[in-house]
Amino acid sequence: MGPSGSPTVREGSATVAGREPKRSEPLLTRGLPLGLKATKQMPTQIRAVVITVSDACSRGEREDASGAALAQLLLDIGAKIVEAKIVSDDLEPLSELLRASADRDDVNLVVTTGGTGFSPRDNTPEATLAVIERAAPGLAEAMRIETLKQTPMAMISRGVCGIRNGTLIINLPGSPKAVRESFAVIAPVLNHAIALLAGSPGGDLH
Amino acid sequence: MGPSGSPTVREGSATVAGREPKRSEPLLTRGLPLGLKATKQMPTQIRAVVITVSDACSRGEREDASGAALAQLLLDIGAKIVEAKIVSDDLEPLSELLRASADRDDVNLVVTTGGTGFSPRDNTPEATLAVIERAAPGLAEAMRIETLKQTPMAMISRGVCGIRNGTLIINLPGSPKAVRESFAVIAPVLNHAIALLAGSPGGDLH
Amino acid sequence: MGPSGSPTVREGSATVAGREPKRSEPLLTRGLPLGLKATKQMPTQIRAVVITVSDACSRGEREDASGAALAQLLLDIGAKIVEAKIVSDDLEPLSELLRASADRDDVNLVVTTGGTGFSPRDNTPEATLAVIERAAPGLAEAMRIETLKQTPMAMISRGVCGIRNGTLIINLPGSPKAVRESFAVIAPVLNHAIALLAGSPGGDLH
Repeated sequence: MGPSGSPTVREGSATVAGREPKRSEPLLTRGLPLGLKATKQMPTQIRAVVITVSDACSRGEREDASGAALAQLLLDIGAKIVEAKIVSDDLEPLSELLRASADRDDVNLVVTTGGTGFSPRDNTPEATLAVIERAAPGLAEAMRIETLKQTPMAMISRGVCGIRNGTLIINLPGSPKAVRESFAVIAPVLNHAIALLAGSPGGDLH
Repeated sequence: MGPSGSPTVREGSATVAGREPKRSEPLLTRGLPLGLKATKQMPTQIRAVVITVSDACSRGEREDASGAALAQLLLDIGAKIVEAKIVSDDLEPLSELLRASADRDDVNLVVTTGGTGFSPRDNTPEATLAVIERAAPGLAEAMRIETLKQTPMAMISRGVCGIRNGTLIINLPGSPKAVRESFAVIAPVLNHAIALLAGSPGGDLH
Repeated sequence: MGPSGSPTVREGSATVAGREPKRSEPLLTRGLPLGLKATKQMPTQIRAVVITVSDACSRGEREDASGAALAQLLLDIGAKIVEAKIVSDDLEPLSELLRASADRDDVNLVVTTGGTGFSPRDNTPEATLAVIERAAPGLAEAMRIETLKQTPMAMISRGVCGIRNGTLIINLPGSPKAVRESFAVIAPVLNHAIALLAGSPGGDLH
């Protein structure tokens, strides 16, 4: 049932709250003078779960270089890594892990690496589509179109992005290089996107 | 039930015909010599409903600058504004308004502004997905990719485009600036697209 | 029931195997020295079905220039044309033909031309969505975005790409020019994509 993962980074101990609504997000804005644009100057803290989807890594046959690269990239933009997991490409357990991670009170971002290609075992987009409530196609499109400038193989990524219960779920490809290139595309909007999920105003006023 | 909107422009008095097929569209081609490429030279008249989706505007707390900008852009390309409405972000009434507007005999285009972002109340894409019969992803992709050249925040727009009952439905973002930038992307194909919906030949022969 | 098509190219005589899993794909890698990157140097043979979707062509009122152009483009990249068909725009028979073609043991690629636009009879994307098991949005996005550089009408193409039973299904627009321009975008990844479907490693490690 539970995904077999060897967490490489771990913090916190939240219980998963099913589909109950999350507690209101603690914006770092209390005590600010009225009228100050809080979300721009003090963004919501990103609290991320990193999930490496790879049969080989989950069996210990390959080192999880992509998950490590992804965690570092998140730390670099000021995110907190709540948990990191390595799981196989099995569809159902992955879907369940995405659901449980997104529903945690202490998580507002779930990023996967791997399982987005054309191989028979590449199930990450389907596992994600099964749990998101609202699609965020612009992030997936932008990652593909921008990385297409570096390799035509970007076309083959089937990754999806979407929102569940106030948490953004993002699929990245499976190599450290592709993780870095794709993450660089969305990094400029990630803090703002997460702040909007928490209810900050100005969502579609770009 | 009915969306609470204060129409700023209003024309016509069509009753909504549910899912009955529309009357054949009156192409402005009668009496043309045989063989003249009517759709290129005398395009189908665009008859549009403009919908501003905004809690603040619907309560009168903010002026509807986006809806006004959008109506003007449509007039500029020769469209007729059949009706303009301002509604809250509530999902169900919005979905019902989109359905009723698309099913009107005197309407072939419905354009929304607002409600496409990441905030918990941003429901416009979901309301649109609930009523379209055929997706038109190319329009939404093009608007995001082209406006991405001006701001990375374009990635955050979740707008969708699609077809219902011979009417094109288009979601635009919620600021006047984003409305202008996004509309400029699709304006060159809008008259042709509407003509195709009415049955003009050459749909996929671009 | 069966689509009325006049095959212009025909090879093989496979019976359609319903939803039974395909026999394992015969990769051209046997006997290769261990470590040789087989998929790059000896790609899986593409075995394609070409489907022209056009009321006019299916009635013999127009020559099928698009299907002929598409078959030639496939031959040019080393593909084998298993079958070519011309069918009307009717949704159900097209959907059934896509399903049956994708499920053939001797087919790993199905490419359609036509039926992707805004006209009331343009049903190809809907017929495709009805049968694919996994979407491949990156191919459709890339074709639209790249051909957008040549004509804004690329936005109007509603084509989708996806995977069913180890077979890639690709929708192309309906004119020979659009077929050539769109095909040129995906040609560089097509052999690799088909190899991945057959189980070659490295699917999302671009």
